[in-house]
Amino acid sequence: MDNVTDVTVSPCSDSAYIKPLRVFYKQNGVSKTWDAVKSHDSVCILLFNKSTESFVFVKQFRPAIYIQKSELQKHEDHWKIDTGKYPGELGITYELCAGIVDKDKNLDVIAQEEILEECGFQVPLEKLQRITSYRSGEGTIGAQLTLYYAEVCEEVRITEGGGNLEEGEMIELIEVLLKDIKHWIMNESISKPATLMFAVMWFLDNKTCDTNSSS
Amino acid sequence: MDNVTDVTVSPCSDSAYIKPLRVFYKQNGVSKTWDAVKSHDSVCILLFNKSTESFVFVKQFRPAIYIQKSELQKHEDHWKIDTGKYPGELGITYELCAGIVDKDKNLDVIAQEEILEECGFQVPLEKLQRITSYRSGEGTIGAQLTLYYAEVCEEVRITEGGGNLEEGEMIELIEVLLKDIKHWIMNESISKPATLMFAVMWFLDNKTCDTNSSS
Repeated sequence: MDNVTDVTVSPCSDSAYIKPLRVFYKQNGVSKTWDAVKSHDSVCILLFNKSTESFVFVKQFRPAIYIQKSELQKHEDHWKIDTGKYPGELGITYELCAGIVDKDKNLDVIAQEEILEECGFQVPLEKLQRITSYRSGEGTIGAQLTLYYAEVCEEVRITEGGGNLEEGEMIELIEVLLKDIKHWIMNESISKPATLMFAVMWFLDNKTCDTNSSS
Repeated sequence: MDNVTDVTVSPCSDSAYIKPLRVFYKQNGVSKTWDAVKSHDSVCILLFNKSTESFVFVKQFRPAIYIQKSELQKHEDHWKIDTGKYPGELGITYELCAGIVDKDKNLDVIAQEEILEECGFQVPLEKLQRITSYRSGEGTIGAQLTLYYAEVCEEVRITEGGGNLEEGEMIELIEVLLKDIKHWIMNESISKPATLMFAVMWFLDNKTCDTNSSS
């Protein structure tokens, strides 16, 4: 999945996904400006596979991570990235199963659909536990993330998952054993977001009797 | 701090802080595009005040959150937000002490400076514990966050903090008692990012004997 080639980067002034905006306002009478991005809210789901005593995460190439870790070389009105020097694996991340809220559906229904689409498990709505909600990058993007939890097992695995191929998603499933999870989340060579790390810590605090499972 | 008025929002095509980019690439031979934002890496610091047995957080108005929660009304080439209907308190967040990496300094030095500037505590570099690093919103922004921990006390509080007034920062310090922290982080009426929530869970797992301090 990390065979990434022919990378070109251009300025992006018109996107359905990111709206860069400048906010002008007065705070306690003082004039201020701030640059921000309006973006979609999301749902994400911590999946625990009871059959294997493992967490189920999605692994994928993320251009946003890749361009942050690479050197952009200017060519007239765009940039190129030398994929020999900066291989695609730099952009590989490990994440919770997740989806943006871009449909007029309840959040739990979107969560249910993403679990099936990305991970292949059929989870009834009543088995989805809503944990909490919070904000993504508060300085730049203020989108809301709503976190769910679902326990799954091999009996409810009905497809291979892998994401929506029509939308070009290339998602690999990975499972991390409960006994290894604490070391795994603190391993910085594995790129992952804080939301996954919080979700795992919540699980260890709420769903296990012995939180020191890895020691 | 939440007396916010005269809010105008315009498209933002040239920002020192957010660079909206379109990434064109081939993944396993399949041509794909993705819209992403190049942004600054950050450091953030979980502060625990031993004198008061409290966590020290910063409270501030965040335009990125505010525009996400408000209705933007189109006026020719810009938008307005009705602050009567959408008061500034909608944009108030509670965060870790933090700063962007926009200086040619070591991360721990930036962390040390932010602790003093925002929170008023003088912390020697050797008392800063680097916990881990992770990615912010992996779909849109791939910036790296490096998390530190520092224990402080009233004896090392040398200023009132409040941020860099010259840069227009208006930051209020708040303290949340250790015994209340679990309920506080799960309280969704208090806007906060996952990074704060993970940091607190890390503390409860690593810095206390009894993680059920609030029950």
